[in-house]
Amino acid sequence: MPRSPGSSPLASLGEFGLIDRLRRLVPAAGPGVTIGIGDDAAVLQCAGPVVATCDIQVEGVHFTWALCGPEDVGWRALAVSLSDIAAMGGVPRYALISLALPAETTPATIEGIYRGLAEIAGAYDVRIVGGNISRTTGPLIVDVTALGSLDGSRHAVTRAGARPGDGVWVTGTVGGAAAGRFLLEHPEVRVPGAAALAAAYRRPTPRVQAGRVLAERPVSAMIDTSDGTAGDLLHLVEASNVGVRLDEERLPQPQGLPQAARAAGLDPAAWALGGGEDYELLFTADREFDARAPGAAEQMDVPLTRIGEILPEPEGRWIVRPGGRRRPLAAQGWDHFSATSRGRRAISRTPPTEHAGGGDATTRR
Amino acid sequence: MPRSPGSSPLASLGEFGLIDRLRRLVPAAGPGVTIGIGDDAAVLQCAGPVVATCDIQVEGVHFTWALCGPEDVGWRALAVSLSDIAAMGGVPRYALISLALPAETTPATIEGIYRGLAEIAGAYDVRIVGGNISRTTGPLIVDVTALGSLDGSRHAVTRAGARPGDGVWVTGTVGGAAAGRFLLEHPEVRVPGAAALAAAYRRPTPRVQAGRVLAERPVSAMIDTSDGTAGDLLHLVEASNVGVRLDEERLPQPQGLPQAARAAGLDPAAWALGGGEDYELLFTADREFDARAPGAAEQMDVPLTRIGEILPEPEGRWIVRPGGRRRPLAAQGWDHFSATSRGRRAISRTPPTEHAGGGDATTRR
Repeated sequence: MPRSPGSSPLASLGEFGLIDRLRRLVPAAGPGVTIGIGDDAAVLQCAGPVVATCDIQVEGVHFTWALCGPEDVGWRALAVSLSDIAAMGGVPRYALISLALPAETTPATIEGIYRGLAEIAGAYDVRIVGGNISRTTGPLIVDVTALGSLDGSRHAVTRAGARPGDGVWVTGTVGGAAAGRFLLEHPEVRVPGAAALAAAYRRPTPRVQAGRVLAERPVSAMIDTSDGTAGDLLHLVEASNVGVRLDEERLPQPQGLPQAARAAGLDPAAWALGGGEDYELLFTADREFDARAPGAAEQMDVPLTRIGEILPEPEGRWIVRPGGRRRPLAAQGWDHFSATSRGRRAISRTPPTEHAGGGDATTRR
Repeated sequence: MPRSPGSSPLASLGEFGLIDRLRRLVPAAGPGVTIGIGDDAAVLQCAGPVVATCDIQVEGVHFTWALCGPEDVGWRALAVSLSDIAAMGGVPRYALISLALPAETTPATIEGIYRGLAEIAGAYDVRIVGGNISRTTGPLIVDVTALGSLDGSRHAVTRAGARPGDGVWVTGTVGGAAAGRFLLEHPEVRVPGAAALAAAYRRPTPRVQAGRVLAERPVSAMIDTSDGTAGDLLHLVEASNVGVRLDEERLPQPQGLPQAARAAGLDPAAWALGGGEDYELLFTADREFDARAPGAAEQMDVPLTRIGEILPEPEGRWIVRPGGRRRPLAAQGWDHFSATSRGRRAISRTPPTEHAGGGDATTRR
């Protein structure tokens, strides 16, 4: 286990000693970094507009030590913010890391988190330019702020640009992170592609290159699938004030997901629609994009799937099930404070039901 | 009390309902904000280099509900980051707010925090452009990232530029936050200026205008006094690789501090040197600044006090006590993880002693 209870190994090192050790682990210097870690604030060169986002990861809410090692926690914490930058069509450049650490956290755990941060920062050419460490009496918390630019495309893709007739598209596959989490919790369940599903949960791939390519096509609206395909699509159509038809059977599922879902006693669509934490890009584009999609997919080296269509009437937001029956589009995903939240990203999340309509969120298994 | 245990009032509101309520409380739109709260990321216009910093505030570590109302917590959380921007000579422009909330947090508490954020953001013309809310099983946490620019001065003031012969200066007064905290914990102690001391603790004033004026003079090195005058001066001289003489009797103390310290059984210098959380600017400047200081103080409407001098030898770092006896400069301030940390900003912090030298930190009261 990455943490040892009892003593406080951090005490002997001290806050400033710890910061000195950590700054050696991450790529801090580099092009654009006038002043990095170690002063009151970083000073950064940014050409054009700055894209900025922050995301907090809480032990026991967003991750558990039973399922994730420290390196995974570091990777995930930054991946989430890079995905937000990607969903605007931005290119991530810099990150700042706030850590709140329980007294019993070992230096090895913190260094593991920083190694994971360094690994994904290196993969996406991101500099970690600032940080902040505090003690906490509660769970370990990593809060990441990512800063990016809009090089190339020069404009950001919002959630608000979807127009009637646009196709609804998604990168990669959806539901894999939820399936991966289930498999990590149930190692006795064997399915093909299990390792890739576990990696989808532990080490999500922010679609940075895809976001950049799509912003230049351009696409009309974009969001990342952090809360689940259905919930994030709802955010997008609400921001765009349009309706939508989501074809459930077109949802691209990763290998092994149906088998894992059956082992969990769930409809595979539950994870594909509401699993969340996939960090794929969900976007809309006009009909001309249909012909261009294969070329775009090749350029970004990520599959693209058309999963629905934007409708003119905001009241008409539907999920069409295999066989043609439809039900209202409703968030299947996770809400921190809703009455159905179970305090963590439940792998046995509320499955979609045909009769509950917009009230799905009140259904419990 | 701002929090009511038991039920979870947040549940009925939901995460997205809460975000909708909060975004109405803060100045989000404004010059430079292309996209504010409500999309995957904010898009901001920044002329010139970006100054970036993050600071985390943990309930029970950085603040307690017994001493601070929700508005104070919001104010403090942003003040800390604005002070970091000021210490680089930057002008704060934007902020992103991450909140980790215990389940029992009431909407009134969260809205109070946001009202405090809005108040200080309005006072310093800062836009709150992004946010993130999570549940936590631990204490309430506010993490703030502030972004600023270097308008006017066009260069940042680091900690590393102090030169032998430079004067050591500080804005305002030091020790007031620690005295204010003590008085809030001991309402039976009456001293002159008590209300101002309490405000120094609850609502610190980031020296934004002062930082801007000083950066243009220019000064040679600058840091803010978050960890205490002695500890922050040590950071500055270490970064500059110089020595220093700090004249303890010149430390500018606010009205009522000596009386409060006596009531606490402390040498007033303990708070002035190690109280921390004052968020004044500690800086160095060459001899020519001595003559310019009164004009600068008038321009920024903040007193400036020369409290020491930079020495050539890095080994020579001294605090000179009244009467002329000297002892090594050592951090009197707070270290989250040091063996002497008591889990919060102790008002009864380790007082300086003449004989402990660099080992001051091992002395306990």
